[in-house]
Parts: sequence; C-alpha cells; structure tokens
Amino acid sequence: MISRQKLIDQIKQKKSFLCVGLDTDIEKIPLFLKEYPDPVFEFNKRIIDATHDLCVSYKPNAAFYESRGIKGFKSLVDTWKYLPKDCLNIIDAKRGDMGNTSEMYAKAFFDEAASGMSFDAITISPYMGHDAVTAYLAYPDKWVVLLALTSSAGSKDFQYLTTEHGFLYEAVIQKANIWAGADRIMYVVGATKSTEFINIRKYAPDNFLLVPGVGAQGGSLAEVCRYGMNKDCGLIVNASRSIIYASNGVDFAEAARAEALNLQQQMQVELEKAGVI
Amino acid sequence: MISRQKLIDQIKQKKSFLCVGLDTDIEKIPLFLKEYPDPVFEFNKRIIDATHDLCVSYKPNAAFYESRGIKGFKSLVDTWKYLPKDCLNIIDAKRGDMGNTSEMYAKAFFDEAASGMSFDAITISPYMGHDAVTAYLAYPDKWVVLLALTSSAGSKDFQYLTTEHGFLYEAVIQKANIWAGADRIMYVVGATKSTEFINIRKYAPDNFLLVPGVGAQGGSLAEVCRYGMNKDCGLIVNASRSIIYASNGVDFAEAARAEALNLQQQMQVELEKAGVI
Repeated sequence: MISRQKLIDQIKQKKSFLCVGLDTDIEKIPLFLKEYPDPVFEFNKRIIDATHDLCVSYKPNAAFYESRGIKGFKSLVDTWKYLPKDCLNIIDAKRGDMGNTSEMYAKAFFDEAASGMSFDAITISPYMGHDAVTAYLAYPDKWVVLLALTSSAGSKDFQYLTTEHGFLYEAVIQKANIWAGADRIMYVVGATKSTEFINIRKYAPDNFLLVPGVGAQGGSLAEVCRYGMNKDCGLIVNASRSIIYASNGVDFAEAARAEALNLQQQMQVELEKAGVI
Repeated sequence: MISRQKLIDQIKQKKSFLCVGLDTDIEKIPLFLKEYPDPVFEFNKRIIDATHDLCVSYKPNAAFYESRGIKGFKSLVDTWKYLPKDCLNIIDAKRGDMGNTSEMYAKAFFDEAASGMSFDAITISPYMGHDAVTAYLAYPDKWVVLLALTSSAGSKDFQYLTTEHGFLYEAVIQKANIWAGADRIMYVVGATKSTEFINIRKYAPDNFLLVPGVGAQGGSLAEVCRYGMNKDCGLIVNASRSIIYASNGVDFAEAARAEALNLQQQMQVELEKAGVI
C-alpha cells in the first residue's frame, strides 16, 4: 500500500517525482531481446532494474499488453509481479463503467487473488460519473487517477466545453472532490497546457496530479513545476517513450537510465527551488 | 464484416434486434460447469448455441474476463472464436485513450493476427475526444459504439451538464457525427430514459443505438421502441443478466432461450407495428 505520506516520503528520499511509463511495444524493443521467452517482460525487467532508484512510480499502459492477446496479458501480469512494491504502481487502463462491471475491472487490477495483479492505482475516465469510480474506492488502500485535462488534441472536443460548473474538466474535478479526498484521488493533467495548472490548483490544491506529456509529447518540466507544484510536490510526471526507447541497441537499459537520471536531476532542482526538499 | 445493410437484413430475417450480453461471472454460472476445463467458455458456448437464431448481436463485457487474469483473457479469445460471424459481435470495453494507445486497443480487439480476436464493434468512452475514436475508424469494416447517455445513476454527474451545444451527451453526438456517419458509429443510450430517445433522434436520426438497461436494469422495451425506433429499426437492445442467468440449474441454456424467445417475440411485434417488417 502506497499512502499519500509514503509517496511524499519516497519523493523526498529519491529527490524525484518521476513515473516511468511502460508503453512497451514489441515492435520497438531491441531485436536481441526476441531470443527470450517473453521479450516484453525481459525489456520491462531491465528498464525497471535500470531506473528503480530514480523514479517513484511505474505505469504500464494496458493497451500495449492487450494488443498481443493472451501472451501480452501474461507479460502484464509478470511485469506487475516484478514491479518494486515501494513504488506507486499505476495501471494506465482508462476504464470507466458502472456497477458490477466497475467491480470486475477493480478485481482485474486490484485483486491479486482474482487476476494475479494488484496495482496501487488505476486511471479512470469520468464520463459515466460516480459509478465509474466508487467500485475502486471500495478498496481502502488504492488510488483512482481520474482523467481531467488530457494532453491529446481531442481534449478540446469535450474537456473545454463550458458547463454550469466551468469547463467540463473543472466540473469533473469539483464533483470528484466530493467522492474522495486528496488521499485517494489523483487527476490526470496534460503537460502541454502548463498555465492550466493554476486553474486546476484552485479546485485541487492538495491532490497529486499525474502529468503525461513531458518528453515525447513536448511539455516542459520547468513550466509544469512552476504552475503545478504544491508544498508536498503534488506532481507525478510521467515519461514513457523518451526513456524506454532512448536507445534500441544492446545499451537500451543504460540509455534509459541516463534519460531517467537527466529528468531526476531536473526534478531535484525543482524540488529544492520549491522548498519541498 | 457486418455492414449497416447486413445488420438490417439480419434484423428483418430474424425478426429481432436482440443483443445477448455475455457478462459471464464465474461465481454465477451453474456449478456443474466447474468440471469443464474452462467453465466460462463452456457456459458461453451453450448460451450462444441456445440463442443464436433469436439475436443479431453478442456483446461480451471485457471486465468479466479481465477480472480472472490470464485465464479470463483466454476465455474471451475462445468466446470470440466461437461467436457466430453473421452476428454483430461487440466487445463492451469502454476504452477511451489517445494516439498510439488507441491504436493498440484497436489491435487488441480488431486485429486477429495481433491478439486472436476481431470483433465487429467496440464500445468507446468519448471523454478524450476524436483521439479516442479515430484509430478504430481506421479499420474500414469496423464500428465504434460511443457512450452518449448511459443507464447508470452516475449519468447525471456529467452527461446532463449544460454546455454551449446542449447537454454534454448531445454535444458528444453532434461532434461524433462529424467524425463518421451512421454506417460507422452507433451510440449507447440507456433504456431507463426512454423519452430522451426523442431528443437523441433529433441528432442521430439514422444511427443505430445500442440500448442496455432493458431487463435487469428495469427499462421498458415498448417505451424504447416507441421513442427510439426508426425506419430501419435503428435499435440494438441488449439484455445480459435476465437471459444468461434465467436459471442456474442444468437447464440454464433452455431457460436462457426461453427468455431470449420472449424478448424476440416482443421485438417482432414492435418491428411489425413500426412497419420495419
């Protein structure tokens, strides 16, 4: 179980708020790994070994595993088993359903006895409302990471619609704040819109924000920290492709470590600047 | 491939617009099936055999399979293989993501060579906008079934927010109509709000609507048809629990057939009343 306090402790200890996204595409990993019984797991294992001391979170992206059918699902289960349990392990699944279906998804990702996996947190899409969230919160020691403002071009289609409670993404945060506090809910906020963090912090001053879009998607870490960091850090910044595909040669794990270290060092500067450490 | 015309032909031929939801819970199926190597697949196989001539669609709910980990994923793949290919086979996955992640989910459910499965349609959550949809539409012969108005209590949280384009669910339909026509997009509309169909038909006169919530969730078939049917039928009505758990004895398949037949007969009356057949 990774409580809010334990997460903050990890951030201070590692001087990092880095999440390594395991969006592992079998077509992009080094060729020499194909000799292993499960090349995707072997890749993840080496990435984890090379980055564990530099990050506080891992985030496998379910889509990349499901795309390979039964084999891929096995890679995901094996990867979960290998993930360091002192990190916040997030399954990026973006599920969002109702009633007994949400309960089944919660079993899939939170109940090791049922599915072989027990992540600490799951990303959830808010469209179906509280039904999409409450089944996960029923697990007392787990987190919901709710989509608020995403870094995709499509975020403009609905997230910026004006509602009676402000933009839709603002309405989502205000409503979800009723369902649970900053010890149970995080929000996804895309890094491509760093000034929006000012606005989001009005509604979610204490929540951790999971920030994708730094690195391959072009967001700036300094800008994110300037507008989004709070006294406990309050940020988990994800990088996937820029780390895991830093090289596709035999040195891929070393290259991944170098990229993670580069980000960790920038993060340390930001944490010091903000007085968190 | 199930084109719009082929779906309409099936509806006219079978005098039915029934979708059987395969929300198969290993804890609810008859005990005697536990002797089989894969009780869930065995259950689905017998349900399919007993209902195939009475329905035009099957809809496995991904959550129920994922909740059992690797074993469950195998049950899903085997179930897909067994599904009659003259039916519209929908994976109820409610995915919704962006860019390369959406492409991976599309592979997972549409690309048999990658994942072992190739459903005709997938349910998608619209929150992330067009990024959540376009990767699936890149498969020229497949359908996106987009959440519009769901039957859950949580639908009130966001779907009924007032935006500059009407309620959020109306904004979703108007926007999605730009992405693709009635030959590629269906909408999920919960049966618990049958008068809302009048409103939805303003924006989606020709689209098929996938209607959950008849049966266990309490919606009325006659009301849905009164307000939602169009000249091509335009409805696929899903029933899950009321059919598949009609009995949990050795007669479960016969009981499921009786329940499906009951619905098919009501559907035939509605199709005749509306002049579709």
